[in-house]
Amino acid sequence: MKLEILPVPGIGDVTAGDDLAGLITSAAPWLRDDDVLVVTSKIVSKAEGRLVEVPADGPERDEARHRVLESETARVVARRGPTTIVQTRHGFVMAAAGIDASNVDKTHLVLLPADPDASARRLRADLAARGLDVAVIVSDTMGRAWRNGLTDVALGASGIDALLDHRGEIDPYGNELNLTQMAIVDELAAAAELVKGKCDQVPVAVVRGYPRRRGDTDRGVSVLIRDGESDMFSLGTAEARVEGLRDAARLAGAGGPFERDAADRALGLVTGLITPGTTVTAGAGVLRMTPAGSGPADLIRLGADAHRLRAALAAEGLASGIEFGDDAVTITFEGA
Amino acid sequence: MKLEILPVPGIGDVTAGDDLAGLITSAAPWLRDDDVLVVTSKIVSKAEGRLVEVPADGPERDEARHRVLESETARVVARRGPTTIVQTRHGFVMAAAGIDASNVDKTHLVLLPADPDASARRLRADLAARGLDVAVIVSDTMGRAWRNGLTDVALGASGIDALLDHRGEIDPYGNELNLTQMAIVDELAAAAELVKGKCDQVPVAVVRGYPRRRGDTDRGVSVLIRDGESDMFSLGTAEARVEGLRDAARLAGAGGPFERDAADRALGLVTGLITPGTTVTAGAGVLRMTPAGSGPADLIRLGADAHRLRAALAAEGLASGIEFGDDAVTITFEGA
Repeated sequence: MKLEILPVPGIGDVTAGDDLAGLITSAAPWLRDDDVLVVTSKIVSKAEGRLVEVPADGPERDEARHRVLESETARVVARRGPTTIVQTRHGFVMAAAGIDASNVDKTHLVLLPADPDASARRLRADLAARGLDVAVIVSDTMGRAWRNGLTDVALGASGIDALLDHRGEIDPYGNELNLTQMAIVDELAAAAELVKGKCDQVPVAVVRGYPRRRGDTDRGVSVLIRDGESDMFSLGTAEARVEGLRDAARLAGAGGPFERDAADRALGLVTGLITPGTTVTAGAGVLRMTPAGSGPADLIRLGADAHRLRAALAAEGLASGIEFGDDAVTITFEGA
Repeated sequence: MKLEILPVPGIGDVTAGDDLAGLITSAAPWLRDDDVLVVTSKIVSKAEGRLVEVPADGPERDEARHRVLESETARVVARRGPTTIVQTRHGFVMAAAGIDASNVDKTHLVLLPADPDASARRLRADLAARGLDVAVIVSDTMGRAWRNGLTDVALGASGIDALLDHRGEIDPYGNELNLTQMAIVDELAAAAELVKGKCDQVPVAVVRGYPRRRGDTDRGVSVLIRDGESDMFSLGTAEARVEGLRDAARLAGAGGPFERDAADRALGLVTGLITPGTTVTAGAGVLRMTPAGSGPADLIRLGADAHRLRAALAAEGLASGIEFGDDAVTITFEGA
């Protein structure tokens, strides 16, 4: 298998209502069946009229941008300085919700297509109507966690499976592959980016020679979206840390099951932090704390130390309850 | 610009001490100047003898794998179930530190090359000695945050800049591009993966036609590694949340500057959680809490509530100190 990556120059300005299939086939009359067409989302958005008018400069522009970002945001994932990473309504995690001010006049912002999979299906159907059986990928440029630099990935796809599943294949040593599902539409988008320009108006490229498995389902890129629940990085580190502090402020209710080792680790964390002289004794699934002295301030201090210890227990996964006595607090666990 | 992506089949088994330049030029006598050679890290590791012997099965195998993972790990980033994502000693964030049991016999694990940039430089030099001026990328398959499916990225590179910097370019609308640095070595690795197989022993591919800017510095892939400090996703969400709980357990020391709005948000969070009847009064940069009743248990409760509030304040970015009196606690801030 050998691939060719071919740029499609000469598409020119795209405006709302433009027929992308027409523009692309005029610019690339050499397009043929089984090609994979990779189209920058920017021109899809423009053709679909996904533009918002904003002031060209000044604080009004910043305010307008902020409002647009809010309207495109399903939830904020992380913020730092001027950077806001959000999950968009489509489910993509992107800086500024993919809203872009480049390659458009200064009085407009370009939003992502409303449904990039649908955009890809439509463009594929329009090309099919012209007798061309191609796969279509709608791409955009994204940042990543952990690595500097951006790469292009797929926002939408039609006529091609987003994932190539190697699970169950046996390697030459007899090992079965367990986990390998390749995000080939992202790799195709990345390959296409190499021949596109950021400023020189080459918003479309063609990958020729990639074997399209017939019977491809048309599930689009949505299968690549990891929901917040199963994502181990659904929040920025600083934001998740703040959530942990909030959890600590909220600690309430009944305890979970007691685990001796976890409790010992929690006690280790607060050793040296709780008031000297405080005693902590462990009973059957309870921790009982008595104050360092008999004055009122000693009792108040005991309460603060008890909540400190409960936060440390929560950090170890131990949910606790608390009972306040007149000379002690009892931190309680299930089954105690 | 048109690219070709060409697979290099026929390399066969690679073992420690093999001359990769020789194997590659024999399998691809058509290799020529200015090609970009993308080599799967697996065969680089094998040639460099980066293999560890492990039992073929049983709990001993799991234990050995665990030990190897620990030795390759600089820090654990996130864990869930059987998955451990770590930052390797090189700085890469990868599941299982990139240790791989596929495409190797059952009694060995393959580690990443010790220094993939150096591996790339060596291979490039060996090819130069054969009269070939090519760029070399050492690639591997990685998962990502937020998106399902894996893609190939670069672990090492030589003879090509990892990043293509578009900053300062002006688009046709007169907008200056601010942020666009493309991780082209990752895109080249992804493109190459499309013609490689996971099980069919095509560990090398060539990208032909990509313009190499002369005077490329040879900084390798290290420029793509985002250090933990500047990474907004340096820890998994669950792990960072636990850190927040630990922060709450450790709260100690002097307060930071008081901010009324943040304090109000913190008070809002704990409203309904602190003991009914407790009073919280705000003075000049201090919050003073008095107990709901006069019994010893009321005082202990007051202390717990005070720590609860301090955790809520910390979640809002307000560092506080605490002073224990006989009838009140005072939560203190700088400049109070």
